[in-house]
Amino acid sequence: MAVQVPGPIDELLADVWRSVAEIDDGEVATYIPELAKADPATFGMGLATLDGQVYVAGELVPFTIQSVSKPFVYALALADRGHADVLAKVGTEPTGDPFNSISIDEATGRASNPMVNAGAIVTSSLVRGGSRADQLERIVGGLSAFAGRDLGIDQDVFASERATGDRNRAIAWFMRSAGLLEDDVDEQVDLYFRQCSVVVTARDLAVMAATLANGGVNPVTREQVVPRDVVASVLTVMTTCGMYDYAGEWLYRVGLPAKSGVSGGVAAALPGQLGLGVHSPLLDARGNSVRGVVAAERISRTLGLHLLLPSERTRPGIRRSYRDDAVRSRRGRTRAQTQVLDAEGSAIAVVELTGDQGFASTELLVRLVLEDPTPTRWRIVDLRRVTRVDTAAQALLDGLLAQLVAGGVAVALVEPRAETARAAVRTLAAGVERFTDADAALEWAETELLGRRGFLDELPEGLVPLAQQDLLHDLSVGVVTEIEARTTTHVFPAGTVVFEEGAVADGLYFVGAGQVSADVRTRTGARRRLSTIAAGSAFGELAIVDGKPRSTRISALEPTICHVLSPQAYADLQAEAPVACAELTLAIARSLSQRLRYSTADVAAFEET
Amino acid sequence: MAVQVPGPIDELLADVWRSVAEIDDGEVATYIPELAKADPATFGMGLATLDGQVYVAGELVPFTIQSVSKPFVYALALADRGHADVLAKVGTEPTGDPFNSISIDEATGRASNPMVNAGAIVTSSLVRGGSRADQLERIVGGLSAFAGRDLGIDQDVFASERATGDRNRAIAWFMRSAGLLEDDVDEQVDLYFRQCSVVVTARDLAVMAATLANGGVNPVTREQVVPRDVVASVLTVMTTCGMYDYAGEWLYRVGLPAKSGVSGGVAAALPGQLGLGVHSPLLDARGNSVRGVVAAERISRTLGLHLLLPSERTRPGIRRSYRDDAVRSRRGRTRAQTQVLDAEGSAIAVVELTGDQGFASTELLVRLVLEDPTPTRWRIVDLRRVTRVDTAAQALLDGLLAQLVAGGVAVALVEPRAETARAAVRTLAAGVERFTDADAALEWAETELLGRRGFLDELPEGLVPLAQQDLLHDLSVGVVTEIEARTTTHVFPAGTVVFEEGAVADGLYFVGAGQVSADVRTRTGARRRLSTIAAGSAFGELAIVDGKPRSTRISALEPTICHVLSPQAYADLQAEAPVACAELTLAIARSLSQRLRYSTADVAAFEET
Repeated sequence: MAVQVPGPIDELLADVWRSVAEIDDGEVATYIPELAKADPATFGMGLATLDGQVYVAGELVPFTIQSVSKPFVYALALADRGHADVLAKVGTEPTGDPFNSISIDEATGRASNPMVNAGAIVTSSLVRGGSRADQLERIVGGLSAFAGRDLGIDQDVFASERATGDRNRAIAWFMRSAGLLEDDVDEQVDLYFRQCSVVVTARDLAVMAATLANGGVNPVTREQVVPRDVVASVLTVMTTCGMYDYAGEWLYRVGLPAKSGVSGGVAAALPGQLGLGVHSPLLDARGNSVRGVVAAERISRTLGLHLLLPSERTRPGIRRSYRDDAVRSRRGRTRAQTQVLDAEGSAIAVVELTGDQGFASTELLVRLVLEDPTPTRWRIVDLRRVTRVDTAAQALLDGLLAQLVAGGVAVALVEPRAETARAAVRTLAAGVERFTDADAALEWAETELLGRRGFLDELPEGLVPLAQQDLLHDLSVGVVTEIEARTTTHVFPAGTVVFEEGAVADGLYFVGAGQVSADVRTRTGARRRLSTIAAGSAFGELAIVDGKPRSTRISALEPTICHVLSPQAYADLQAEAPVACAELTLAIARSLSQRLRYSTADVAAFEET
Repeated sequence: MAVQVPGPIDELLADVWRSVAEIDDGEVATYIPELAKADPATFGMGLATLDGQVYVAGELVPFTIQSVSKPFVYALALADRGHADVLAKVGTEPTGDPFNSISIDEATGRASNPMVNAGAIVTSSLVRGGSRADQLERIVGGLSAFAGRDLGIDQDVFASERATGDRNRAIAWFMRSAGLLEDDVDEQVDLYFRQCSVVVTARDLAVMAATLANGGVNPVTREQVVPRDVVASVLTVMTTCGMYDYAGEWLYRVGLPAKSGVSGGVAAALPGQLGLGVHSPLLDARGNSVRGVVAAERISRTLGLHLLLPSERTRPGIRRSYRDDAVRSRRGRTRAQTQVLDAEGSAIAVVELTGDQGFASTELLVRLVLEDPTPTRWRIVDLRRVTRVDTAAQALLDGLLAQLVAGGVAVALVEPRAETARAAVRTLAAGVERFTDADAALEWAETELLGRRGFLDELPEGLVPLAQQDLLHDLSVGVVTEIEARTTTHVFPAGTVVFEEGAVADGLYFVGAGQVSADVRTRTGARRRLSTIAAGSAFGELAIVDGKPRSTRISALEPTICHVLSPQAYADLQAEAPVACAELTLAIARSLSQRLRYSTADVAAFEET
């Protein structure tokens, strides 16, 4: 999935890289001797989108993840143990103290939060595993799943951390004295040192952050790394405690949940949007990467990524709204049925939603429906184009549907195409009809309406003769006889293709019995049904008058018998019975007019906003 | 704008109210004697949407705003003085200390943040005004603008605060000693006490919070209370410092930027979604309203409102994408021109965007366009349905357009209808054509293409005779003569309505010279142009064959001359020259067929996702 052509995002990253690379303030961390070997000039960046596109700039030098591991291991612990068990030992309050302080909340007896070393050591001990080796496998495996590739441990850095890690040992002993750690403290601290020594690149950090931004699903591998419900908690502690003493100003200036580490890494996530990874080993006095902070701030400002920037969802999410007197199902109807639907179809109301449904869009829908003054007996909510139904939308939609059903409105839902939206809609109110396409829902409501008016059973049994065909209804007996003399009868078993889109025109078809459907291939290759045509109705009028290839594919939905007037027969009719032919042509022109009128009404029904 | 029918949101609020009203833990604040008089049973809630709908539950008892005023006055100070001046005196770091501590950041010499009393007193002194009276007017006026109604001061509470406010006086003197306050300390403290004594209800707090969530625009009055660019800063300090020592856990559990006060008020805002106000005077040990915290948590959980819940924008924001060989502009074209466009129209590509454009949707668009393998000479980006173009989208779109122009592609932008989106698009790349509707852009590209092929000047000068009309092109001279004998000539000055939608059919019109446009009225009452019809083309075919009322309105775009065949003349032709009439009817049927074929192609071009 590599980009073929460098685009504006590559440009943007390159611009930021160039301007930030000039900064060479700060110092490489020295308290772990092995880290002091880092090349201070190194500077790499990655940006990962939620559909798995990864943009990079600069050098992707491997480095040990250090404290940037903390939020990801916290996510693993929450996934393995649940919120209650983790919160019992590690809190969520920021501290004003340094990262390596012995921070216990006096009031609760817990480690203050999982972003300081004390809380992080306790958190590591909480991940799943019967032994330290199992837990290490879980941590390295989990971090690898976040990164979307197998990560390893830098044994030199691990050895260096272990050799100089007395302060962390002291913290761990203190945690044990407070009852927050069990078992062997040395092994626990080793586990933590190994976690910190996992090797990543700036690109990895971007993908890891994007996995959080994407609700726990790695956007590159599509793996659900941690459950969606732990992600908000992880992003929250990153927001309040991720950037050491700089958390408040970082949120103010950059506005992204983030975590930094002493090796110069920064991972930042904007929920629902993207993940960012930066690596540059020069650190400021607070222990954050100097270039990392500036680069993140510039990218955030250029792209307007601040978490607290109100980006209104101005789009109402309502694509169009119409009633059956204006837009009809594609089910063929007799003249009499059409008249009933013309007169009473306004009792069938359809509202078509689009995009992501959240609180604001659904609240608007609720008001639109509840305050609609036109009497409505059937209400169809078309969710096909809905891409997501969030918790708020689900609650409101459920309440609305229940209220409509209680008020005696027959309600139909058209299922969304998007999987997550479909799952959300499936949990909605009982007592509603469910369809997979809007046309079927409209047909259902029309059929109910026609049934109540007694207009359902009037289709003749057996073959509808030419004289009773809708197209020929107004023609004189003599004309129909002339046409009949030139038609042949064809039988199509259910499922047969009568003709393909693009085929040479081979006649005008009158459906005597059965039913066919007309569909076209869309640009995505999917087939889209335009209409169903039942006994008494005709198809193939376009090609008989203009001789051009078929604009649609026709297939038999059930065993179907057609009277067919071939192009040759039409030409013969013109030559031998010109008056009859003229009447037929006029009848065809009228039928085409009607179709164009519906198509115009369809356009007028489109929501203008 | 009251809701006519109680809907699911009223139900939800009522449910939360009932369950939370049962809690009666906590104590009424007593340190200001007047506050101790509050009725502990009082409990009211408000929820305001960003289009100005306000839902309420419980009792809307007036109370003094107290510390809930702090973020709003901070917003006024930022608006009046700018970020730099305010940040010079008041920082953004949370403190672990109580709200009434003397909190100065030792390193910077600033008040820690504007949510503790020290920072709030300094902030109040920074709002605009030549005197304390002016500043008070600004503060009360500003809070009133946030609430959308005139607010007053409770003089009893003010007197009580003033009589017992020694600690705040001490804080103010300390601020003055640190050089953060000038002028008379007593007056400054009085100003602050008056600010705290402004009287509001839970409904007011909801609207005030919604104003922040709405980018500074009061959703009820539509007034821009503070500039958009201060809102993210205000919401940031609410996020990190709004709920006293409970800020970390509040963000973890409730996930909303919020501010509470000792009189029992809580205001919470979800950017881009809603504002919430709760009032109940029983406080917990940290000084937050007990019921306020629980009610906010339940509403947040039920509606899934957590700020850090990744709510993916899964909708790509691309409504459809098509090329001119499939979908044509509505400008009438001659046969020869149509053939050129059929053959070469694929060089004209249109991409139609919809809804809010942010980073994710625009990044997808960029890739779609840059990786499109079909050779493209004209690229039209149709933004009409775009409701918002955020900073990221603007940057990426600008880069994309510049890259296309540099690559020799002629680019046209179709302006969005939404005002904010239009403003954003206006700042985009130079060197692109701009249109207000997609049809005009398509017509421009077609005209450019036809011009390059030398097919532009072939329209005859003067009146196009019947024999050269597209509709009659294939008919024999004799037939055309029969028709001609029965037409009359009509002249329509530019701007004249030829006939209205719904009018009785009065004939088939052949445009001899000039140009007309066909439009329909949509359900929102707007007019939508369906086509323009130029000399050589006909209109009114539908009504001549079916006699039904006009489906569109036709108006002359320029001085226009038409040859008109009336219904009577058509009937005469049928009676007197049936063969000629049959040929005309067939020609009409062919023309209608062609229009239906385009309409089918239009449907197939719709994006299926």
